[in-house]
Amino acid sequence: MTPAVEELSERLATISDLGRAGVLLFWDERTKMPPGGAANRAEQLATLARLGHELLVSDELAELIGRAAGEVGDESYESDAASVVRVARRDGEKARRVPAELRADLTRAASLAERAWVTAREESDFTALLPHLERNVELRRRYVECFAPYDHPYDVLLDDYEPGMKTAQLEPLLAELRDGLRPLLERIAAAEQVDGACLHGTFPSAGQRRLSDLLLAELPLPESERRLDETVHPFAAAIAPTDLRITTRFDEGYVGTVLWSLIHEAGHAMYENGIAPELGRSPLGSGLSLGFHESQSRLWENWVGRSLPYLEHLLPTLREVFPDAFSQVEAAQLHRAANRVEPSLIRVEADEATYNLHIILRFEIEVALFSGELEPRDLPQAWNERMRSYLGVEVPDDARGVLQDVHWAGGAFGYFPTYALGNVIAGQLWDLIVEELPDLHEQLGRGELVPLREWLRERLHRHGAKFEPAEMIERLTGGPLDSAPLLRQLEEKYVEVYGLNGAQPR
Amino acid sequence: MTPAVEELSERLATISDLGRAGVLLFWDERTKMPPGGAANRAEQLATLARLGHELLVSDELAELIGRAAGEVGDESYESDAASVVRVARRDGEKARRVPAELRADLTRAASLAERAWVTAREESDFTALLPHLERNVELRRRYVECFAPYDHPYDVLLDDYEPGMKTAQLEPLLAELRDGLRPLLERIAAAEQVDGACLHGTFPSAGQRRLSDLLLAELPLPESERRLDETVHPFAAAIAPTDLRITTRFDEGYVGTVLWSLIHEAGHAMYENGIAPELGRSPLGSGLSLGFHESQSRLWENWVGRSLPYLEHLLPTLREVFPDAFSQVEAAQLHRAANRVEPSLIRVEADEATYNLHIILRFEIEVALFSGELEPRDLPQAWNERMRSYLGVEVPDDARGVLQDVHWAGGAFGYFPTYALGNVIAGQLWDLIVEELPDLHEQLGRGELVPLREWLRERLHRHGAKFEPAEMIERLTGGPLDSAPLLRQLEEKYVEVYGLNGAQPR
Repeated sequence: MTPAVEELSERLATISDLGRAGVLLFWDERTKMPPGGAANRAEQLATLARLGHELLVSDELAELIGRAAGEVGDESYESDAASVVRVARRDGEKARRVPAELRADLTRAASLAERAWVTAREESDFTALLPHLERNVELRRRYVECFAPYDHPYDVLLDDYEPGMKTAQLEPLLAELRDGLRPLLERIAAAEQVDGACLHGTFPSAGQRRLSDLLLAELPLPESERRLDETVHPFAAAIAPTDLRITTRFDEGYVGTVLWSLIHEAGHAMYENGIAPELGRSPLGSGLSLGFHESQSRLWENWVGRSLPYLEHLLPTLREVFPDAFSQVEAAQLHRAANRVEPSLIRVEADEATYNLHIILRFEIEVALFSGELEPRDLPQAWNERMRSYLGVEVPDDARGVLQDVHWAGGAFGYFPTYALGNVIAGQLWDLIVEELPDLHEQLGRGELVPLREWLRERLHRHGAKFEPAEMIERLTGGPLDSAPLLRQLEEKYVEVYGLNGAQPR
Repeated sequence: MTPAVEELSERLATISDLGRAGVLLFWDERTKMPPGGAANRAEQLATLARLGHELLVSDELAELIGRAAGEVGDESYESDAASVVRVARRDGEKARRVPAELRADLTRAASLAERAWVTAREESDFTALLPHLERNVELRRRYVECFAPYDHPYDVLLDDYEPGMKTAQLEPLLAELRDGLRPLLERIAAAEQVDGACLHGTFPSAGQRRLSDLLLAELPLPESERRLDETVHPFAAAIAPTDLRITTRFDEGYVGTVLWSLIHEAGHAMYENGIAPELGRSPLGSGLSLGFHESQSRLWENWVGRSLPYLEHLLPTLREVFPDAFSQVEAAQLHRAANRVEPSLIRVEADEATYNLHIILRFEIEVALFSGELEPRDLPQAWNERMRSYLGVEVPDDARGVLQDVHWAGGAFGYFPTYALGNVIAGQLWDLIVEELPDLHEQLGRGELVPLREWLRERLHRHGAKFEPAEMIERLTGGPLDSAPLLRQLEEKYVEVYGLNGAQPR
C-alpha cells in the first residue's frame, strides 16, 4: 500500500473496531447482560458511537482521504484501495454535512420517542406518541436540508440505508409490485384456503433448541465462526466476518418462528461471513446496503427455507425432534403450511405475499410525510385507509396499526422500503441462480447448501460494500432493479400451493 | 460541578467507557466468542486500549486537569471532585512518562512471549522462553528508567498494581510472613495429616452448575447485577458496578475448585458492586489496588468460605446436590478437608498457608531481577532452590517450576506480591470485623452474609479508588500493613485443624 492509503486504512480500521465493539455491546445487551447493566450500557454505546463519528468527521481524515485519492488515481474502480478511498470519502462527506448539535438532537429525540412508544403501544394511545413523532419528523426534515440540493427530500433518507437509491426509481418499482400483488391476493382469497395447523401446537423450548442446532449445523456457516443465543427480537450481528452472532426465540405454540427466523438470520450472517477477510476492518467490511442484506436473509428464508425440496429434506429432522407433531405430516402439506397466505394486521407476522404490501404502505406514507403532503397527526387515518385498500383488513386499534413498529419512534425514516427491496433483489438473484445452478432443486432436496452459498459468495458477498446497490444489480443482472421476477415467482408458487389457474396476475 | 471539573469528568467518563467496553470484549473472548473471532478480537481490544491511552496522555487532558485542580482547591481531600482530579493527574502523569514507542514495544514483546510461553511450558523448555524473558526484562528496565529518580527500581513496577507501595516496605513485610510461615509449616508436617478425600470423587458438571447457582444465590450480590459463566481460568469482570460477570470452571474430579473459586470471584465482584454508583464512570470506579482487590476475594474465599460455621451452613446444600459424596460427611471433617495443608509444586493449586511462600519466592526473584542481582537465565536455579528451601519440594521440571505462570511472559513484573498482600490485608480486616461484628460467627452459621458485606461496603468498597493503599490501611486500622494478624489467624486455624499444640510459631 502507498503511504497515505496505508495511514488511511489504519484510521478506518480504528473506526471499524469501534463499530464492531459497539455491535458486541449491542448483542450482549440483548442476550447476556444482567438488567442492572442497562444504564451504563447506554453510556458505553453512546461513547463508542461518538468516538467513531468524531474520527469520521475529523479534518485529519478528510485531508488523508484527499492524499490517498491522489495515490489511487491509477487503480481500477473496483480495486480494494480505490474502493476504500471512494467509500470513506462518501461516508466522511455525508457525516460532515450534519452539524454535531443536530445529530445530538436526533439521537436524544429518538431515544425519548422510543421510550414513549413502548407505553403508547401498550395503551394504544397514538396521541401520546404524536408530539415525539412530530419532533422526529421536524428534526429529520432539518437533516434532509443538510443535503440540499436533492431531487426529492426522501432521497436523503433512503441514502442512509440504500446508498444512491432515488425516490423516483423506487416509487414506480414498488407501485408495480403493489399492483401485481393485489390481484394475486384476490385470486388467493377466492381459492380454497390452505391448512397451516401442523406448525401450531406445543413445541417445548428444549426441542426447539435442539432443532435450531440441527438446522444451523446444516447451514453453510462454519461452526467455529458463529454462535446462537436466545433473544426477544431475533437479529444477526457481525462482531467480525468470522465472529457471527445469530439470535432466535422459541414460540412454544408455533414452530414456524424458530424455523424461518433462524434461516433468515443465518442468511444475514452468511453474507457477512462471505466478505473478503482483507476488507473486514475497512468501510467495505459489511453488506453493501440494507436492501441487499435483506435479499440474503429472505432468499435463504423464503426461496430455500419454504421450498418443497428443502422442506422434504427437513421433514425427517422435524419428525425426529417433534414426532407427535410431524409423524403424520407429509412434505406437500408442510409446504402448503409454510406458504399459507392470509392478510393480517402485523407486519412481522405477515406471509411472504402480503408482507410487501405492509412495506409499501409504510413507504408511501413516508414519502408523503417528507414531500409535505402528510403530517404526523394524519398517520392513523392514512395507515388504516391503506390497510383496508391493500389488504382488506380493518385496523381495530392503533396498537395493531400505526403503533406496531418502533422504526418511526426511532427516527428511522427510509428504512422500511429496504425490506421490500430485499425481496425484489432476491427474486432477481433467484432467476440467475436457477439458470446457473441446474442441479439446485436436487441439491436443496439433499440439504446440500454449499453450492448456493458459493454462488452468492462469489457474485455478491466477497465484495462487501465495494459497490453501490445500483452498480451491484447491474453487475449481477446487466440491468436495473426489477420486480417482475419476484412477481412471477410468487405467481408460480401460489399456482402450486393454492391450485390457482395459471393466468398471469394482471 | 464547576466548569473544568465537569468537562474533566466527561472526558474521564469517555476513558472509563472505553475501558469497560474492553472488559466486555475480554469477558466475551473467554466465555462466548467463537474461535474464529480471535484475530479480530485482538485488534478490537488493542484499538480500545490505544484510544483510551491517547485520551489519557493528551495535552488537552493535562491542561484540563490543571484547570480543574484550581477549582477544587477548597474541597476536602476525600471529596469526589478533589479525588477525581488527584487520581486523574496521577494516572495521566504516569502515562505521559512512557514514550509511545516503548509502550508499543512492551505490548508486542509480551504478546510474542505469551505465545512462546504456551509451547515452552508444554515442552518444559525454559530455553525456548528465555530470549523472550530477556527482552521483557530489558524493556521493563527501560520502562523503570522513565520514572527515575526512584528509591528502588522495583518500586516503579509495584506502583502499577499497588499505587505508592515501596520495596523497602514490602520486603520486611513479606520476610516476616515467610519467617512466620516456615516454622508453622514444619509443625504441620510433623502433625498427623488431615484427610481431604471427601472433596475428591465424581462431581458431574450439571450438579456443579446447580451448586454454583445455589451458592451464588446466597451471596450478597444482587441477581439482577451479575451473571455466571464457564471459562478455563476463572475470573471476575466488572462491565459496570451493576453489571458483574463471574466465571468458574467445573473440575469433575474435585468439587473444591467450584466451591472456593466461585466465592473468591464473587468477592472480587462484591467489591466492584459496592463502589458508590456516582464514581462508576470515573477513574475512582474500581478497586483501589490489586492487593485490596485480592483482600476481598481471599476474605470471602478463605475467612468465610473455609470457616467452620459457614461450612456447617453449606453442608446441607452439598448433601442435597451430591448426596453420594456428602451424606456421610460431617462438618468438622469438611472443615479439615477445606483447610488441608500440603506443600506442592503449583501456585494456583496451593493451600492457604503454602500459597504465600509461592508468592514470596516470586517476589524475591523479581526484586533480584530488577536490582541487577539476577538475570533471566538464572531463573530456574533461583526458583528451584527456593522451592526446596521454603516448601521442601523438589521441582522435577521447569513446566512445574519456573514456567508454570504466564505473568513474566506477559511482562507483568510486580504483580505477584499483590496476591500475598491481599492475604495480609484480609487478615488485618478480619481482626477488625470480628471485633465490630460480635455476631459474625452465628451469622456465618446461618448463611447471613449481608452484615459482613455491609461492613466491607461502608469501610472500603464505596470509596472505590479514592485512596492509595497506605492511606486506606491507615484509615481502617490506624496503622500500616502488618502480617501479624494473618500469621496469628493461620496459627489458630491450624491449631484447630491439625491439633497442633498452641505454641507460637516462632
